[in-house]
Amino acid sequence: MKQLLYGVAYYDEYMPYERLDEDIAMMKAAGINLVRIAESTWSTHEPQNGVFDFSSVDRVLDAMHKAGISVIVGTPTYAVPTWMVKEHPDVLAETPHGPGRYGARQIMDIANPTYLFYAERIIRKLISRVSKHPAVIGYQVDNETKHYHTSGPNIQLRFVKYMREKFGTVEKLNQEFGLDYWSNRINSWEDFPSVVGTINGSLGAEFSRFQRQLVTEFLAWQAAIVNEYKQPGQFVTHNFDFEWRNYSFGLQPDVDHFEAAKAMDIAGVDIYHPSQHLLTGKEISYGGDSTRSLKNDNYFVLETQAQAFPNWTPYPGQLRLQAFSHLASGANMVEYWHWHSIHNSFETYWKGLLSHDLGSNPTYEEAKTIGRDFARLSPKLVNLKKKNKAAVLVSNEALTSMAWFKLPGGEIAYNDVMRLMYDRLYEMNIGCDILNPGSTELGQYDLIVVPPLYAASDELLDRLNAYVEGGGTIVYAFKSGFANEHIKVRTEVQPAKIGDVCGVQYSQFAEPSGVTLKDDPFGVGAENNTIDVWMELLTPTTAEVLAWYEHPQWGEYAAITENKYGQGTAYYVGCLPSAAIMGKLLERAVRKAGLWGKDQELSFPLIVKSGQNEAGKTVRYYFNYSGQPQTFLYPYGSGVELLSERNVAAGEAVQLERWGFVIIEED
Amino acid sequence: MKQLLYGVAYYDEYMPYERLDEDIAMMKAAGINLVRIAESTWSTHEPQNGVFDFSSVDRVLDAMHKAGISVIVGTPTYAVPTWMVKEHPDVLAETPHGPGRYGARQIMDIANPTYLFYAERIIRKLISRVSKHPAVIGYQVDNETKHYHTSGPNIQLRFVKYMREKFGTVEKLNQEFGLDYWSNRINSWEDFPSVVGTINGSLGAEFSRFQRQLVTEFLAWQAAIVNEYKQPGQFVTHNFDFEWRNYSFGLQPDVDHFEAAKAMDIAGVDIYHPSQHLLTGKEISYGGDSTRSLKNDNYFVLETQAQAFPNWTPYPGQLRLQAFSHLASGANMVEYWHWHSIHNSFETYWKGLLSHDLGSNPTYEEAKTIGRDFARLSPKLVNLKKKNKAAVLVSNEALTSMAWFKLPGGEIAYNDVMRLMYDRLYEMNIGCDILNPGSTELGQYDLIVVPPLYAASDELLDRLNAYVEGGGTIVYAFKSGFANEHIKVRTEVQPAKIGDVCGVQYSQFAEPSGVTLKDDPFGVGAENNTIDVWMELLTPTTAEVLAWYEHPQWGEYAAITENKYGQGTAYYVGCLPSAAIMGKLLERAVRKAGLWGKDQELSFPLIVKSGQNEAGKTVRYYFNYSGQPQTFLYPYGSGVELLSERNVAAGEAVQLERWGFVIIEED
Amino acid sequence: MKQLLYGVAYYDEYMPYERLDEDIAMMKAAGINLVRIAESTWSTHEPQNGVFDFSSVDRVLDAMHKAGISVIVGTPTYAVPTWMVKEHPDVLAETPHGPGRYGARQIMDIANPTYLFYAERIIRKLISRVSKHPAVIGYQVDNETKHYHTSGPNIQLRFVKYMREKFGTVEKLNQEFGLDYWSNRINSWEDFPSVVGTINGSLGAEFSRFQRQLVTEFLAWQAAIVNEYKQPGQFVTHNFDFEWRNYSFGLQPDVDHFEAAKAMDIAGVDIYHPSQHLLTGKEISYGGDSTRSLKNDNYFVLETQAQAFPNWTPYPGQLRLQAFSHLASGANMVEYWHWHSIHNSFETYWKGLLSHDLGSNPTYEEAKTIGRDFARLSPKLVNLKKKNKAAVLVSNEALTSMAWFKLPGGEIAYNDVMRLMYDRLYEMNIGCDILNPGSTELGQYDLIVVPPLYAASDELLDRLNAYVEGGGTIVYAFKSGFANEHIKVRTEVQPAKIGDVCGVQYSQFAEPSGVTLKDDPFGVGAENNTIDVWMELLTPTTAEVLAWYEHPQWGEYAAITENKYGQGTAYYVGCLPSAAIMGKLLERAVRKAGLWGKDQELSFPLIVKSGQNEAGKTVRYYFNYSGQPQTFLYPYGSGVELLSERNVAAGEAVQLERWGFVIIEED
Repeated sequence: MKQLLYGVAYYDEYMPYERLDEDIAMMKAAGINLVRIAESTWSTHEPQNGVFDFSSVDRVLDAMHKAGISVIVGTPTYAVPTWMVKEHPDVLAETPHGPGRYGARQIMDIANPTYLFYAERIIRKLISRVSKHPAVIGYQVDNETKHYHTSGPNIQLRFVKYMREKFGTVEKLNQEFGLDYWSNRINSWEDFPSVVGTINGSLGAEFSRFQRQLVTEFLAWQAAIVNEYKQPGQFVTHNFDFEWRNYSFGLQPDVDHFEAAKAMDIAGVDIYHPSQHLLTGKEISYGGDSTRSLKNDNYFVLETQAQAFPNWTPYPGQLRLQAFSHLASGANMVEYWHWHSIHNSFETYWKGLLSHDLGSNPTYEEAKTIGRDFARLSPKLVNLKKKNKAAVLVSNEALTSMAWFKLPGGEIAYNDVMRLMYDRLYEMNIGCDILNPGSTELGQYDLIVVPPLYAASDELLDRLNAYVEGGGTIVYAFKSGFANEHIKVRTEVQPAKIGDVCGVQYSQFAEPSGVTLKDDPFGVGAENNTIDVWMELLTPTTAEVLAWYEHPQWGEYAAITENKYGQGTAYYVGCLPSAAIMGKLLERAVRKAGLWGKDQELSFPLIVKSGQNEAGKTVRYYFNYSGQPQTFLYPYGSGVELLSERNVAAGEAVQLERWGFVIIEED
Repeated sequence: MKQLLYGVAYYDEYMPYERLDEDIAMMKAAGINLVRIAESTWSTHEPQNGVFDFSSVDRVLDAMHKAGISVIVGTPTYAVPTWMVKEHPDVLAETPHGPGRYGARQIMDIANPTYLFYAERIIRKLISRVSKHPAVIGYQVDNETKHYHTSGPNIQLRFVKYMREKFGTVEKLNQEFGLDYWSNRINSWEDFPSVVGTINGSLGAEFSRFQRQLVTEFLAWQAAIVNEYKQPGQFVTHNFDFEWRNYSFGLQPDVDHFEAAKAMDIAGVDIYHPSQHLLTGKEISYGGDSTRSLKNDNYFVLETQAQAFPNWTPYPGQLRLQAFSHLASGANMVEYWHWHSIHNSFETYWKGLLSHDLGSNPTYEEAKTIGRDFARLSPKLVNLKKKNKAAVLVSNEALTSMAWFKLPGGEIAYNDVMRLMYDRLYEMNIGCDILNPGSTELGQYDLIVVPPLYAASDELLDRLNAYVEGGGTIVYAFKSGFANEHIKVRTEVQPAKIGDVCGVQYSQFAEPSGVTLKDDPFGVGAENNTIDVWMELLTPTTAEVLAWYEHPQWGEYAAITENKYGQGTAYYVGCLPSAAIMGKLLERAVRKAGLWGKDQELSFPLIVKSGQNEAGKTVRYYFNYSGQPQTFLYPYGSGVELLSERNVAAGEAVQLERWGFVIIEED
Repeated sequence: MKQLLYGVAYYDEYMPYERLDEDIAMMKAAGINLVRIAESTWSTHEPQNGVFDFSSVDRVLDAMHKAGISVIVGTPTYAVPTWMVKEHPDVLAETPHGPGRYGARQIMDIANPTYLFYAERIIRKLISRVSKHPAVIGYQVDNETKHYHTSGPNIQLRFVKYMREKFGTVEKLNQEFGLDYWSNRINSWEDFPSVVGTINGSLGAEFSRFQRQLVTEFLAWQAAIVNEYKQPGQFVTHNFDFEWRNYSFGLQPDVDHFEAAKAMDIAGVDIYHPSQHLLTGKEISYGGDSTRSLKNDNYFVLETQAQAFPNWTPYPGQLRLQAFSHLASGANMVEYWHWHSIHNSFETYWKGLLSHDLGSNPTYEEAKTIGRDFARLSPKLVNLKKKNKAAVLVSNEALTSMAWFKLPGGEIAYNDVMRLMYDRLYEMNIGCDILNPGSTELGQYDLIVVPPLYAASDELLDRLNAYVEGGGTIVYAFKSGFANEHIKVRTEVQPAKIGDVCGVQYSQFAEPSGVTLKDDPFGVGAENNTIDVWMELLTPTTAEVLAWYEHPQWGEYAAITENKYGQGTAYYVGCLPSAAIMGKLLERAVRKAGLWGKDQELSFPLIVKSGQNEAGKTVRYYFNYSGQPQTFLYPYGSGVELLSERNVAAGEAVQLERWGFVIIEED
């Protein structure tokens, strides 16, 4: 990227009256230099089978070009036209809940050849038409693609072939998946039952892995078509998204981001998060770290909220805080979904930069200041390079396996524990990368934090053991090592494979009820000295016990341990502790890993993010994620605060407004 | 009506043993002078296709006539016989949840021609047989008719034709409903997808309107058949019912009462309400006002509770209180569902006037006193005429639109806000009419209260604006004016169309969290000075601000305003306030409208209702809706307390027993 | 039985690697002398249609025999193989939720002839092969059989024939079931609608009874096949189970245990219960009493928990406490489900005696002590004979009827009230039998406790009346007598048929809200002096009132009464009282019945169970169901504490460890 991109999703097709010139004038006033178009409006561009009408695309491209605004063109394949479903009802995905119904988006079977035929045709028609237009800088293939739980007969057939390819014989499959249980054995491939009703977690999770592979294949297929038309300098991207809990919460269960991103030139992401008094920056940080790690490079925020929901209408200052937080994580683009609030249909209350009156409003006015600053500071802020010494290892396999074998109560899932760990690192200003099970460059990190790695191959656990032996510091959550990659519980004493490295073992576990840690070993106070949901009855072998359970019968068992192994150190957390305990433990691990530094003297709500800019200088962002003004002593060498163009001396006290921030480029 | 009717629904067919003579003797003892029969027992009257057996009808008519009890005959069409469904399974309505299952009532497709054929035949057979019987005074067509969510292919086909009729071209439809969104465009009528799965709120709401029209047509069709046989002096009625929240709560979403009532001679209604310590009279009042307004005339309470559920078993005195409350709202009939408690099937615990033992019980004994008083006081109480100066405007369109675009949290719906406003007027003894969007006689009211008028045509808003300009007082709830009648959000600054009249504008809104009104402007105390769910960030243009938000960031925005416009005054409530705040605001509006009078010096639980009787005298009911005795000073001219036949002087202190009441006819 | 059996369910087929020799060695070390095999692994034994492979059965039988461990062979029919469903999808039960899906167990239509054909073939193949093997001591037919809600067209057809057989004419059916209601009349058998959608409680409950009969027939059919091969000394049993509320809660709604047990030689049962700090022994006691009463003989605990769920991992001592509690109720076998924790599929967290590491663990170590004691004490503890003077009458009909006609709120069901009564008897150490409506030997009991007997025939009520008249003491819960066996509400004054015996009557009832009993008549303190959900407005005729309602309007009605009738006494409880009140009332009834004795001087958590052993001596178990040590004075004649072989003198103070127990054989 040559410059920061400040963008909006733009839907000329949705406008209640002719607005193009006025919209562009308002965009220019706000410093918008990018729009994304076309990804949602297949039925407008192909009103009937084989009849094409790209007039809205053409006119928007021309008008944007004239205004100096760049355009990303999306392939309009995530929402299918009425005529297609009427002609070919079977393009709708059959799911475990039955056949599909027309109406919503993302309801088709992404492996259906009829759908693929029409999708390919509209992609080729559209992309071939726009690729040489001077406004176009790149493409987004599809939109927030998932597998939509497609599981009809064609998918089942492909899955059986996939299984035969993978396992060779039914005997091997029966053994590895334990299919003798409840008479589930498959004694010939022809008998393979529909996986939709299975109660076998290994089989169900394998099907989920297969479905994620469908997504990877679909996106690669789209990217390959677009690549045929892509001009030099143009890029292909995709807007990956996260597990949705009314906002972007954690690892996406239905897509393998790392695999699917391979077909993209630049990684893109959609990040939505709580706002107002609940704005913390955590999702911006996690989403950014996650997406930056996909290709180990800068990334695009292809969608984030402008006004959005009534409970997200930003307080004064928050839109700015959010925009620069994205940059601080390595984003080169901040694009709002969307320009204008929609007047009909479904997402009417997911408001854009403009309200329904299409005039100015306080949020739009604040966007103007962002656009101005982005333009002015782009040379100093674009392409921020980050080099983190800490990482969090996330795993689709572990997540899926814990969805099959839930924690007691069923409310705490994999992503809750992942976020419990990630958020604590964020709060202590530890910059993180996000690793996946395939990551091989573990040695570059001083600290690796591992949420419950419930399903993992021997090879992965061996790699993690070697990392510790070689000097790394690792923090394992409970249940790590429990099962292999097929969710076959390991037959070794638990924690299997990593027991020697962690210096502990257990053969029993329980659901805690009112259990605490003996003598509050982390000094978090009675209200925080709690554990929940899970307790492994750990016996140390070589480990030092950091915390024992306080329990009338099980007080002799350990809860949290630390073990020296080879050159490194392994922490094992045998229960789900409170956030305060997890924070204290991770602080200990950070210190052990030698990562405790000046940034750690500050903590949430005062957030520090940094990196090197293109001039090779260190740029540091200091964010105030609170409604109260904050002051801190700037601990680094003298520099320039870029927003105010004011010099800042080492040791100087710096003020932050409520929801405010500064950017200091060290001299 | 010549006299008050005191009735019961009577099911000779359900009796466990021969009871007719004994039942009639007990009815006579209780002053019952009306029964409703036949509406539930099609399978008894037509045991096989084309085989008719009206013996239970005949014998009941003869016996009732002999006893001097009048009869309303219901058409038995709301519950279909087993043989019909066995022969023609497609008479069952296909709904969004799938094909129908036999068992319950109200499961058929009311547009199915097979059903209509059989329904017409049984109606003609039955009504032609009974119409000249001297016991018969009128007819009830069907029972609590709704559309039962019928949405099978035949309904879909009719809906598409309806849409083509309404919009002419797909282009116009696409534009008005915003169907470009998510590729939902319909580019030829043949492509029109099943509306069952739609996510487009405009389309979904239009389908609901179409379904309500099916109900109107069905009832008019039945009434037309019955009218062919109706004798002079006989009437056709229908028992409309309300949104059901385990009792009659508010506006019926699935029927347009105003339209459907046009085919009726007299409006009828079913009213069920909480009882015991939760008895307030609110549902009796709302249901009565609503039904009286349908034809601006006296009405029938065709069903209300005798003993009903275990939590409704009336306290001593409550059955009387309820019966006379119906009269005070303008009812000419109080009919219980039902005479006897049913011994099998489904509604066994919805008890009638008699318990399952079919003997006397305390509730039946109390009914005897009612029957006696009805008979004695009928000349003075029948045909009570009411002339209200206040009205509440309710709207099916607004209700449906807010079901599609829910308030945050999803728990507060249109009817909650409607009742929040109506109930406050009730508590301050303001008599109300209920208006619908088509009402043109606005000028006769001094005060119109408007629950969230989220979807409204230009014409309606213009009419309301003219009302204010002409001197009326109006109170608008938040979201009023937001969208047009197709739920297309208006592109003007909000509140659209009514902004000038209200003297406010806003472009943003939020979900309040712990927000109050600054300095408790209505003096309701800290625990009541709260708002919930919704806050529009209002800026006054010409309005006086009655309340500002107390909020760290949004304290400069107004919450509630008052504006002089033309000769009138408009209040705008930009949030959902507590009941106490709403009460205080409505009190202010009542005073502004000049409606504060003597009745307003009393308040709930002391309820006053009044009207003019046939002698042209004013009759006033004073009800004590509480378990504690009450005293009040009678503020009007001297009169006679009708129950005790005692003279009451102006200014005299009158005592009310717990759950008691008096009726004073002014001299 | 000649000896106590200490067993495990064993699945050689599920083992992740060859384990047989090691498993047997570990079993022997733990005193395991029984395994159950084969009931879950049809697909292993018949991998393809007609291809059989019993190698795992053969090798396990041989190895067990060699080790001196007995074997129960289960018929593997409760979980069907993949090939069968692929060939014959219609073997899956169609239920009210639609057609079945392959995956789980217990999904087939137990009346489907294809299923029955294959089931019979595998049963004959398996049983004929093993019956003469010296290791085999008996058979379990199927596993936790229920009807799985099978209700497809074939079931419907059989049900209609069943109804015609039962009622003869539609007229009689219509009358008895009140089918005129809502036009549900069936005027010819051909019109009989699918019962799946019915809203008629009589019809729905009759269908449930018919479904329970299918279970009885199915189990009898299996037993008859097995009996053809059964050798002298071998037995046929079945593991009945209970209403499941995450543990074995109460009466099984879907099986008539008494009827189904007739085909068994020995009654068997599965009992699972809360553990850790929630362990009370109540389910062990109820499940044992219930199963012992089926054939009035000793019984098998064919499944109970070893480690099971994380919240059930036993505290030290609890496994022992549980095992001997089963013996104290008359069990001759304690068998764990299961030997080893399963490594794949579904029940991975329902852990066995061994954890997934298949090594030792604290629970297994405790089992060793049990095995040792069982072997040593078997002659003194096996075949314990119990003779109880109190009984609880449970009724499938009453349970089903109250599922159709729920108590207000819908949360309290039949089994809640049954357990409210049973648990109080347990807590005061009253040994109970469990009676069913068909029980004719009522006279042997001094006290019969009757949970809400909502649906009961005249004959049953007459029998109970005669019991009281003859000198028995009875305690009726509310709603008893209300309806006949077809859930037709009785037309007599309530409580119908038993009103004279109870000396009360009522015609009204209500849902209490904050109601108490006047003047705390049972002295339970304010926090316990409460009633919930239901209050009948009782008027005594001849009864003494034990408690009046405290209520502003209904204070003149009685809540709980006692009545002398003939030689006996009847208590009637017209409301749902707190546990404390119910306990006090039952204490009064126990004293009235002359059953108050030495054991009643102790109470929960100190539980006494007793019986006579084969030597004719009285054996008494004293269990401490708490985490605190307990002491009690041994009140009987001198004896020997069997675990310690220590003499105990009359009046001696005996110590119980936390979760500990002693067994004293009186000299």
